[in-house]
Amino acid sequence: MLHKTPYPEYADLPGWRGKLNEIIFGTETPGGKAFDVALIIVIGLSVVAVMLESVGSVRQRFGPELYVFEWAVTILFTIEYILRLSCAGRPLRYALSPFGLVDLLATLPTYVSFFVPGAQALQVIRLLRILRVFRVLKLASYLEAGGVIMTALRASRHKIGVFIFAVLTLVTVLGSMMYFVEGEAHGFTSIPKSVYWAIVTLTTVGYGDISPQTTVGQVLASVIMLLGYGMIAVPTGIVTAEMNLASAAARVCSNCGVGRHDPEANYCRNCGSRIRGGES
Amino acid sequence: MLHKTPYPEYADLPGWRGKLNEIIFGTETPGGKAFDVALIIVIGLSVVAVMLESVGSVRQRFGPELYVFEWAVTILFTIEYILRLSCAGRPLRYALSPFGLVDLLATLPTYVSFFVPGAQALQVIRLLRILRVFRVLKLASYLEAGGVIMTALRASRHKIGVFIFAVLTLVTVLGSMMYFVEGEAHGFTSIPKSVYWAIVTLTTVGYGDISPQTTVGQVLASVIMLLGYGMIAVPTGIVTAEMNLASAAARVCSNCGVGRHDPEANYCRNCGSRIRGGES
Amino acid sequence: MLHKTPYPEYADLPGWRGKLNEIIFGTETPGGKAFDVALIIVIGLSVVAVMLESVGSVRQRFGPELYVFEWAVTILFTIEYILRLSCAGRPLRYALSPFGLVDLLATLPTYVSFFVPGAQALQVIRLLRILRVFRVLKLASYLEAGGVIMTALRASRHKIGVFIFAVLTLVTVLGSMMYFVEGEAHGFTSIPKSVYWAIVTLTTVGYGDISPQTTVGQVLASVIMLLGYGMIAVPTGIVTAEMNLASAAARVCSNCGVGRHDPEANYCRNCGSRIRGGES
Amino acid sequence: MLHKTPYPEYADLPGWRGKLNEIIFGTETPGGKAFDVALIIVIGLSVVAVMLESVGSVRQRFGPELYVFEWAVTILFTIEYILRLSCAGRPLRYALSPFGLVDLLATLPTYVSFFVPGAQALQVIRLLRILRVFRVLKLASYLEAGGVIMTALRASRHKIGVFIFAVLTLVTVLGSMMYFVEGEAHGFTSIPKSVYWAIVTLTTVGYGDISPQTTVGQVLASVIMLLGYGMIAVPTGIVTAEMNLASAAARVCSNCGVGRHDPEANYCRNCGSRIRGGES
Repeated sequence: MLHKTPYPEYADLPGWRGKLNEIIFGTETPGGKAFDVALIIVIGLSVVAVMLESVGSVRQRFGPELYVFEWAVTILFTIEYILRLSCAGRPLRYALSPFGLVDLLATLPTYVSFFVPGAQALQVIRLLRILRVFRVLKLASYLEAGGVIMTALRASRHKIGVFIFAVLTLVTVLGSMMYFVEGEAHGFTSIPKSVYWAIVTLTTVGYGDISPQTTVGQVLASVIMLLGYGMIAVPTGIVTAEMNLASAAARVCSNCGVGRHDPEANYCRNCGSRIRGGES
Repeated sequence: MLHKTPYPEYADLPGWRGKLNEIIFGTETPGGKAFDVALIIVIGLSVVAVMLESVGSVRQRFGPELYVFEWAVTILFTIEYILRLSCAGRPLRYALSPFGLVDLLATLPTYVSFFVPGAQALQVIRLLRILRVFRVLKLASYLEAGGVIMTALRASRHKIGVFIFAVLTLVTVLGSMMYFVEGEAHGFTSIPKSVYWAIVTLTTVGYGDISPQTTVGQVLASVIMLLGYGMIAVPTGIVTAEMNLASAAARVCSNCGVGRHDPEANYCRNCGSRIRGGES
Repeated sequence: MLHKTPYPEYADLPGWRGKLNEIIFGTETPGGKAFDVALIIVIGLSVVAVMLESVGSVRQRFGPELYVFEWAVTILFTIEYILRLSCAGRPLRYALSPFGLVDLLATLPTYVSFFVPGAQALQVIRLLRILRVFRVLKLASYLEAGGVIMTALRASRHKIGVFIFAVLTLVTVLGSMMYFVEGEAHGFTSIPKSVYWAIVTLTTVGYGDISPQTTVGQVLASVIMLLGYGMIAVPTGIVTAEMNLASAAARVCSNCGVGRHDPEANYCRNCGSRIRGGES
Repeated sequence: MLHKTPYPEYADLPGWRGKLNEIIFGTETPGGKAFDVALIIVIGLSVVAVMLESVGSVRQRFGPELYVFEWAVTILFTIEYILRLSCAGRPLRYALSPFGLVDLLATLPTYVSFFVPGAQALQVIRLLRILRVFRVLKLASYLEAGGVIMTALRASRHKIGVFIFAVLTLVTVLGSMMYFVEGEAHGFTSIPKSVYWAIVTLTTVGYGDISPQTTVGQVLASVIMLLGYGMIAVPTGIVTAEMNLASAAARVCSNCGVGRHDPEANYCRNCGSRIRGGES
């Protein structure tokens, strides 16, 4: 990961734009933290409002209040988006970055609903803004925790890829077999539907909306279930093995950079300075 | 963990209060053990009685007997509570501690039912007293076992926090998407209900009371199922990695305190005294 | 595990009884192996026959054939039981051992059905004889594999005990809460039934025969599901940590007894003799 | 794994047959890669076509187009099969190898449907050709990833065998018990059906098409669920322990063959040459 300018938004701008950049995009100054926390609260409330509005009984009783709140948040987000654009290091790259697009899309639905009734339903896209919280949380010791998880997942991506491919082949082949074994009369109306059923079964979800009726079908279903039950050991083993390595590797001396210290060690074996973050 | 006065209840009181304190709050003397075992049995029987009373057919046949038993246990618990108060090191802090509050709440419902019929149903709170058993079990080698589990969970709390946040964001976003894809006609009557469905699906519970009907919905549901099936590897990997460390760290020499002995070692590598408890 | 006379049945008897003992109870001589394999086949066929007889359509068509087969197996098992008794080292202790009791109970139902019609249904107990197969399989490299699993499970029994207790307390408390939240109208007809539902939900089985209807109930159910989804990491972590140790410990030099060799090592680091069974 | 002629198809043939062999069976030359990628795309499209044709509404609208596409792919596969036969090192051994049989069976259904209407449904066997993709993917770093998984699974095959046997015995015994406890009135119509139900429950799939109604049955079902919930830790522990070893063993120096390098190491501890593929 690049430690310098990981996002196109940071910049050492002079004057009020630099100040604003520090508050809006920064996460380390008191002002930047306060802004992020306030933003998270507004996003959270806005998402709760969108969720509540979808409940019929709530919409009937608090419809006007939710309507006003919706517009207030939309205007707030619009001002925020304009400020972000005005103080970003490279405004265009920010606007086209995933976070920039989500920031824009979070404001549009309410305006569109002005012309096209019902469009405010699309506000649900605002939920994605919550992902920004991850960056805020990165400040503290969650940085290391998230880093260890990402390291383990990145290190095991090829093995996980092989596993996903094996699972998809399996549900396609077994689902197709079930289509021929059970047939349309028992709910397996097409191969795609049978593959869907195979996924429901292999992942041990088991809705029960479709279930095998014939003896051969139940034997085949038993094989799928036992496979799904046992195969979960494979990704678990993959991630755990990498997590073991990542966990150990995380105990890095902040002074000299030597890593993989014994979990019991309090001082670096190389330079003798104190090791922190052994908790992870 | 503080090894001195971990609870506000212990005290070196003189006379009968000290004796009583040892029996009621202590867990190491014969009297203290006997009291704890007796208490566990009474709590267990009382909980079974509350459970049976909720069964219609049992209530009809053994109603009066259960009514008498209920009052007997309530009076017993009341006396016990008064004794606990009288001999606790700091009575007020005990009364306000979680265990103290549960001890009090375990007696109230029956009295309240004297004035408000039906209130005895609240006796279910008595179930929480069973948690006290954990402290009793801590006496023996379960101390180490519970300690290793707690150490592993505490060490991985930041990683688990990141994971829980990721899961909650995922079910909110995916649940909202399902609300728009499937709509109210197929049982996804509101966003909160769709999020509930997403939790049912991601955790592979799969009741089947709500299930996707459209093709797009079934594709999206398949993605959620496969995510839930595979993502379980993450917390498992986190806890396992910490458990590996905690398990190894637990082999500590009781003489000199040096830990992390080889599982095969019988003698401390530092001072040569015998190592015990390598089992757990 | 005691390596001498692990079962009360072995004995160094003279004459035909010693010979018979070697064949019937032994698992290492050619005769003993052949007998065990034959026995497994007969038990397997007998169990399949019992299963098929429970299927209505099969019973109607092959009733007489299954009846004859049933009696043939019963007479065979009776003769075998008498021979086992006659050549066991300590006949009484064999007769009272779990395997001895199962051997006896496997023959009785058919005789009892002579006087009490329908009793042959109890033949299902014969299924338990299949457990004897484990001992036969122990012969080969499955000995080590089974040994590693048992070592890991035995080493983690205290931690697993703490976990089981936590799960049982959790389903009791949460099940009781659901009884009060949902009530009898929504299928939660009693506390035991609600606890049953909590087990169905926490273990992510999710039949869907009972499912929460109220908002509070669905929120509580979501908590139970997420707990069940995440808590599986605890026993997995426990067993994996022990399995890591047991797996490594299993690479023991058969010459000098030094264990825990590197998985890559082909020769003992202590005495230089070749290490086998590193595969496990 | 044999590195020389792992498949009977490779050969150092002279002239056009050697060239063709390199393209059709080879995976390392540009031509071989291009052929494999093209083949995967055609197989993928063909499988999608078979799946779509099983959907009633699609069949009605695009029936003729799918019919033409089906014949085009069949003729293409026939030509390919003849070319494979003509340039394989040992044509007969290729034709009788699993991949060779699948290649043949992938072409037959359409021809058979010429005489026997409906036989084209058997084209689903074409899905198995996708497994050939694994060999193509093996080219890159997926080779190592797949190798680590296979090594771990192969190393734990005896332990997994013991586990599968334990699971099958358990579902047979517990399923039979449920047949006697619940009886035919509650859906447990025969022992095989009850065993099927036990598999559905133990693997935590839980369709809910059959579920226990009696108190004893629900208690027994709870035991099965808790067993299934906890037992998943066993295969997970087995595979993880082996994955730990396989992951570490995979860091082998490509120069001198010394393995098990520290995950942090960049240079071989034996000969000093750079280590690659530590990522896996």
